[in-house]
Amino acid sequence: MKKLWGGRFTKSAEEWVDEFGASITFDKELVIEDIEGSKAHAAMLSKCGILTKDEGKLIIEGLNRLKEKALKEELSFSIKLEDIHLNLESMLTEEIGPVGGKLHTARSRNDQVAVDMHLYLRKQVLIIIDLISEFQEVLLEKAEENVETIMPGYTHLQRAQPISFAHHLMAYFWMLERDKQRFSESLKRINRSPLGAGALAGTTFPIDREYSAEMLGFDGIYENSLDAVSDRDFILEFLSDSSILMMHLSRFSEEIILWASQEFRFIELDDSFSTGSSIMPQKKNPDMAELIRGKTGRVYGNLIGLLTVLKGLPLAYNKDMQEDKEGMFDTVKTVTGSLKIFAGMIRTMKVNKEQMEKSVKNDFSNATELADYLADKGVPFREAHEIVGKLVLSCVQKGCFLADLTLEEFKASSPLFEEDIYDALNPYNAVKRRNSAGGTGFAEVYKAIGKAKKCLGTEKHANQ
Amino acid sequence: MKKLWGGRFTKSAEEWVDEFGASITFDKELVIEDIEGSKAHAAMLSKCGILTKDEGKLIIEGLNRLKEKALKEELSFSIKLEDIHLNLESMLTEEIGPVGGKLHTARSRNDQVAVDMHLYLRKQVLIIIDLISEFQEVLLEKAEENVETIMPGYTHLQRAQPISFAHHLMAYFWMLERDKQRFSESLKRINRSPLGAGALAGTTFPIDREYSAEMLGFDGIYENSLDAVSDRDFILEFLSDSSILMMHLSRFSEEIILWASQEFRFIELDDSFSTGSSIMPQKKNPDMAELIRGKTGRVYGNLIGLLTVLKGLPLAYNKDMQEDKEGMFDTVKTVTGSLKIFAGMIRTMKVNKEQMEKSVKNDFSNATELADYLADKGVPFREAHEIVGKLVLSCVQKGCFLADLTLEEFKASSPLFEEDIYDALNPYNAVKRRNSAGGTGFAEVYKAIGKAKKCLGTEKHANQ
Amino acid sequence: MKKLWGGRFTKSAEEWVDEFGASITFDKELVIEDIEGSKAHAAMLSKCGILTKDEGKLIIEGLNRLKEKALKEELSFSIKLEDIHLNLESMLTEEIGPVGGKLHTARSRNDQVAVDMHLYLRKQVLIIIDLISEFQEVLLEKAEENVETIMPGYTHLQRAQPISFAHHLMAYFWMLERDKQRFSESLKRINRSPLGAGALAGTTFPIDREYSAEMLGFDGIYENSLDAVSDRDFILEFLSDSSILMMHLSRFSEEIILWASQEFRFIELDDSFSTGSSIMPQKKNPDMAELIRGKTGRVYGNLIGLLTVLKGLPLAYNKDMQEDKEGMFDTVKTVTGSLKIFAGMIRTMKVNKEQMEKSVKNDFSNATELADYLADKGVPFREAHEIVGKLVLSCVQKGCFLADLTLEEFKASSPLFEEDIYDALNPYNAVKRRNSAGGTGFAEVYKAIGKAKKCLGTEKHANQ
Amino acid sequence: MKKLWGGRFTKSAEEWVDEFGASITFDKELVIEDIEGSKAHAAMLSKCGILTKDEGKLIIEGLNRLKEKALKEELSFSIKLEDIHLNLESMLTEEIGPVGGKLHTARSRNDQVAVDMHLYLRKQVLIIIDLISEFQEVLLEKAEENVETIMPGYTHLQRAQPISFAHHLMAYFWMLERDKQRFSESLKRINRSPLGAGALAGTTFPIDREYSAEMLGFDGIYENSLDAVSDRDFILEFLSDSSILMMHLSRFSEEIILWASQEFRFIELDDSFSTGSSIMPQKKNPDMAELIRGKTGRVYGNLIGLLTVLKGLPLAYNKDMQEDKEGMFDTVKTVTGSLKIFAGMIRTMKVNKEQMEKSVKNDFSNATELADYLADKGVPFREAHEIVGKLVLSCVQKGCFLADLTLEEFKASSPLFEEDIYDALNPYNAVKRRNSAGGTGFAEVYKAIGKAKKCLGTEKHANQ
Repeated sequence: MKKLWGGRFTKSAEEWVDEFGASITFDKELVIEDIEGSKAHAAMLSKCGILTKDEGKLIIEGLNRLKEKALKEELSFSIKLEDIHLNLESMLTEEIGPVGGKLHTARSRNDQVAVDMHLYLRKQVLIIIDLISEFQEVLLEKAEENVETIMPGYTHLQRAQPISFAHHLMAYFWMLERDKQRFSESLKRINRSPLGAGALAGTTFPIDREYSAEMLGFDGIYENSLDAVSDRDFILEFLSDSSILMMHLSRFSEEIILWASQEFRFIELDDSFSTGSSIMPQKKNPDMAELIRGKTGRVYGNLIGLLTVLKGLPLAYNKDMQEDKEGMFDTVKTVTGSLKIFAGMIRTMKVNKEQMEKSVKNDFSNATELADYLADKGVPFREAHEIVGKLVLSCVQKGCFLADLTLEEFKASSPLFEEDIYDALNPYNAVKRRNSAGGTGFAEVYKAIGKAKKCLGTEKHANQ
Repeated sequence: MKKLWGGRFTKSAEEWVDEFGASITFDKELVIEDIEGSKAHAAMLSKCGILTKDEGKLIIEGLNRLKEKALKEELSFSIKLEDIHLNLESMLTEEIGPVGGKLHTARSRNDQVAVDMHLYLRKQVLIIIDLISEFQEVLLEKAEENVETIMPGYTHLQRAQPISFAHHLMAYFWMLERDKQRFSESLKRINRSPLGAGALAGTTFPIDREYSAEMLGFDGIYENSLDAVSDRDFILEFLSDSSILMMHLSRFSEEIILWASQEFRFIELDDSFSTGSSIMPQKKNPDMAELIRGKTGRVYGNLIGLLTVLKGLPLAYNKDMQEDKEGMFDTVKTVTGSLKIFAGMIRTMKVNKEQMEKSVKNDFSNATELADYLADKGVPFREAHEIVGKLVLSCVQKGCFLADLTLEEFKASSPLFEEDIYDALNPYNAVKRRNSAGGTGFAEVYKAIGKAKKCLGTEKHANQ
Repeated sequence: MKKLWGGRFTKSAEEWVDEFGASITFDKELVIEDIEGSKAHAAMLSKCGILTKDEGKLIIEGLNRLKEKALKEELSFSIKLEDIHLNLESMLTEEIGPVGGKLHTARSRNDQVAVDMHLYLRKQVLIIIDLISEFQEVLLEKAEENVETIMPGYTHLQRAQPISFAHHLMAYFWMLERDKQRFSESLKRINRSPLGAGALAGTTFPIDREYSAEMLGFDGIYENSLDAVSDRDFILEFLSDSSILMMHLSRFSEEIILWASQEFRFIELDDSFSTGSSIMPQKKNPDMAELIRGKTGRVYGNLIGLLTVLKGLPLAYNKDMQEDKEGMFDTVKTVTGSLKIFAGMIRTMKVNKEQMEKSVKNDFSNATELADYLADKGVPFREAHEIVGKLVLSCVQKGCFLADLTLEEFKASSPLFEEDIYDALNPYNAVKRRNSAGGTGFAEVYKAIGKAKKCLGTEKHANQ
Repeated sequence: MKKLWGGRFTKSAEEWVDEFGASITFDKELVIEDIEGSKAHAAMLSKCGILTKDEGKLIIEGLNRLKEKALKEELSFSIKLEDIHLNLESMLTEEIGPVGGKLHTARSRNDQVAVDMHLYLRKQVLIIIDLISEFQEVLLEKAEENVETIMPGYTHLQRAQPISFAHHLMAYFWMLERDKQRFSESLKRINRSPLGAGALAGTTFPIDREYSAEMLGFDGIYENSLDAVSDRDFILEFLSDSSILMMHLSRFSEEIILWASQEFRFIELDDSFSTGSSIMPQKKNPDMAELIRGKTGRVYGNLIGLLTVLKGLPLAYNKDMQEDKEGMFDTVKTVTGSLKIFAGMIRTMKVNKEQMEKSVKNDFSNATELADYLADKGVPFREAHEIVGKLVLSCVQKGCFLADLTLEEFKASSPLFEEDIYDALNPYNAVKRRNSAGGTGFAEVYKAIGKAKKCLGTEKHANQ
């Protein structure tokens, strides 16, 4: 079969140019979407009398047969036919004869490929939203088991104040909640039909864009045909939302890796989520966490890649835009894989509560308690802070911790210190008492878990 | 004044380290936000009995005095005091004495700076939304004047089909509409109060976070204190939304530059938005469009910069996060400036309707009409396409255009051609007839302008 | 076969974790490099008496058989065996028995994979350097044919001064020359052997790193074992050099696209490097140029991807670094493909000399000549510039060009104008006279072509 | 003073457009470079008889006076005059009268600004090279003090094998050495003169580009005038080299932060390079390391920013290119500051040798010794690896380390174990024996330090 625009050209293109230019090696991923888009288009053409009912029926039946084959992976694609659209059109014509050529009436590959991308991304974003929810459930489970598990809270990777491990886990719950929000909001812009925009200007045929949009489950149509075929915002938005999500996972990964180190020993990863070394038999490496942290790079790269592609492109379609697909596919694969793996890794990890608690006792992370204690008794905070700083320094010089100081020593710093200072210094109490809204106090953490559950439940309902 | 954490340290830091670490050189931009945040905090402390009414009043009055000075640009900041927070605290203490030191009760710089950033970005995003609307109004004006201005529509920068210039302009209207949507949605996440999260864990003081949040106009509070101080998603989202916006402007800029070239001559930019050459007196350069196209780079860079900063950071606050500010400020400045300039540039540009129309007549961009003509008479589109391809080729070889062929020549290609083919080939008709929804047909374009006006109007109402 | 680190673990990893973590799907690209590295390692072990001569021989023979199979694409890899190293080791053991297990003595996958990457990139960079030279030759050819082809030179996409088309083409010659320089310099850092660094610390076996390095054609060894296994600079440098190269190609692509437009019509691309439209039969799209311009995005993305991966990674090897490969492979494919396509596109393009010359005559790009003319007669340049600016303005108002003015009109602006002003205004003369070094004067362009040829010739010699 | 290209324009630009377009707010950083470039240009014009000797002298004297004022920071710039070039030209004319206007003969702002950038970057890159050397010296000092300081070597942040702390530090020495190499090589491309390229095409004046190039200390001239004014490769290369350098520093920073944590306690940072907390008096935060790790983001961002700017720009100069400066200035400031701070931080840090050694004793990082021991006695490495894996597992289950096993227990695993196995397990011996080239064995580390010193010394000599 010769090239479809052959009439215009006197020379046939060389094979290697074909290969460089062809997209079928990757856009075959869109085979189902392309068939569905074509079915809706054919149904619309038939409904509007642009095709006869018989032609419409014939085309749709042919497309259904192709879809069956596609699902069984029985289709084989050719680079000569460039892309998924021409491959399928050629198969359709083989299947049902020249009437297949009528499917392209009032349509262009420019709006066709845009439809495919919208359908594809809608499906994937819904899956990602579900995977985030599943991961959040795992976090909730782990959090519920660890409300009163005390660990050091860090700033600057220095122990700062003791916190509840559940509280730490719940921080990620809310990050993921925002991720989900962003993905959900993006659906408004993803779920919009470009079909019928033609090459760029619309068409003279009396088509019904609303009809085909509805058949495909779109919420509405693009208002402007030039925009419909030139717009790749929805992919950029997906890549950006994914970058932020991966950034969250990279932070969590970093912590998993720290916690699994011999120095921290806060957790032990399950063997299924670790690997060993080919040369050092004692190693148990947090490979999955490292890999996810690393994969953040490719998603950032995919984002900057498409931003670069689109920079400075005049309207409407330009071939540059063919570069929108691989980064999107790769990001979908990376994000869905990472979410699944992370949920499994957290679900199966063992929490070393003793080690966490031990850490919290042998440090100065209760120093804030002293400052708050004084501030509570009316000392301006800055002054209290200074007093405590000196106490810490003297402990460091003596080689002891704050709770090891005698009441006299405390009083020497400030007469306001009383016997109850030892209670305040107890890390368990320090955590328990931080009951400001959203704080690490146990009561607050329980409350937060309750809210989070409700939040997850509601969403599920909303999606049904 | 010595460093506030001085009690712990035995050595004073050298000046150059101070300079490297200080943020006051840029975070002074947040002076008003920092004061407002402090006022709300003081009011809350006072309301909750953590400060006495008198203390609260004293502090708030002091802060008001500082605010007045700030507005008059009478404050001078010191690198020794690191950042805006410590600078203001020190000024406050000078202003009202040691009671100033009580303001920091139940607060940390970690939640304080987060509050500032949220307040700042809320203000700027609202401004940006307004600027987008103003730009959209300009587009509407220009579009209304040019519904029946015909120009070549391009794909691959090759003339594809004739379109209405208004239709082309309106494509940008809808891009900007999506930008506005995204910025608006981001406000949900921006307008949330981290105040009261403390250093990372909340506080033991009986604070009322909802109260201070309400005073500051926030829609609600962060649910988790660790998240509240570690979260920079809202800035990333802003940078990402801005990158997409700048991408749109870069595409528009590219077109302005093309249109203003001697080769296109579709528009003439007003002298106020062009500049000349120091060596070539005849030049009238579309500098503003070029500059905006170029500035896309810095916004992409700011996005990738912050994504990099946050990658792999453990919770909660790390000093790396100080790097969140300059890119944000720079992006705000770039985006607001670009929107203003672009609106002015479009408002004042002169449209060369004759040149546009002339272009559309001397080319083959009416070839689709022929194919549609045949398809309309029942020829499968692919076949029609091939017939027309050959006609174009023969024209090229003869050095004429399609409308120059005789009816006999047309009939030789296909007997279905009739006298009315010449009407179809007229570019004005070609545009006029493309009345599929969202198409370039004049009736559709008028309809789209109407929708767009309504859309702008409604939004204005909603923001009031 | 069970996992090689199985002794340590009590549970077997689930299949989907395996898939997520496995690299064999892409690192099989390194099969030949891995075998070559192993052969050199075996030879070295044998030479140093760590393996017996017989063991060494057996292993090398086994590896040679695997290499043969690999070249015939007869090897089939398994995800269970994770990566190319373990797959090959397992095949080797099947091939020659348990002695295959001795190959891993004094080696780790950490140094092994580093060797593979260095060998791979050395090969590819040499290919890229050759492809650049071939492209440069094409440019030289085209330049030689077009020294006296006059076209408008642009700044701000406004016609600025007439130039020689050859001069324009030669600008790209020198950009490519710098690209080649950078790639060549990077070879110093690429061509260095990490083999023998072990997991991170070196080994207790009496190995000879210089020996294996020499066998593999490396120029030397890494001086530090930790660095040897952690370093990915050489890939970053490759990605960065590639980004700059692609940036050059994107600029050239942009120009090709402009020149091929109906508005410019400076060139016509050969049919083999253009494609048509599925809906618009008259279109001849510069697809290859657009695609290459677009592919710039993926290379930038690959660069930022790996920069992100490496940011903040502690020494030595981390699993994140597995993410170094796909971006590198993709970049190699993109860069080599783009260079080949571009050379072909330029070689076959038709230059419309008449159209170029016509353009140059109908504009003000000879205005600088006037200014220079006056400056040459002693008028301060700024003053001359102003005089000419006014002349241009009056022409614009009258609707004529500079050469249309009468001598009286010229003299009215400045008495220094004489009859010879018309010669100066002739664009051919304007180009011809710009014989400052590196300028567009014909003599200078011929000289530059001569230098460039010598430059290409010398390099060829040097590479032999 | 009105705009210099005023003759052409009928309207004056509004102030806010001026501000948006002006570069004087940042390009004033180039004031000295611009003056030097002008002096060389004037001297050349005079030498070539394009200016009279007197004119040349007058101009150069005027420029010298401006330079003096610039050094005393007595110049004040105006946004009305757009950029550093027009500001200085205007000052010159004020200084010496209308003859100042002759300086712009045979020059354009396009080649002028390129000269400034080349001069600026040459100076800065030389400074950076020196700062790297100074940092390397600090590393050498610290390394020399710590050759026999044993610490755990990590892969995957899991303890892998014991190493020498000096060896670890020296890994960074060699990374920096490559950085220096790259910066040095880039000088070839930086140190090349674009002066005389004019606006884009060269000039008709009989200039001598080699002469002005030599006066400015350039190694040669750009071969092509279009390339000379369009090229920004040298800045991209600088940004890319800087990104790799910052990546190295970010890795080192990460390690510093880990080592300074309570969990590792390998080092203590000097108070001058740490800061405290406003709320937690016990904190000693590794702020400088965090900040440098964070600043990696802005340098990556600057790189991607300029790559984006240049993508798809047609030749020659476009206003977009004005965006090349701020990212470059910011990167210079970031890189030089980071190098200085890092050197100081390392020089003053206290190494906790005891804690490092203690860590190395209480783990399984000596497991490789066992595997090597068996491999050395002829057990295929893979088999040895498996045996040791089981031994580690049994220790983990018993709660002991390898050295705690009895000889019988060892022999039960393999009869090849003998009494000397305990020597092999001693971490000190394990490190000492790794004397493969570039390994962590003490002898090798001393050798490496020697080489490194020589390397530093030679370079110094070469630079003199």
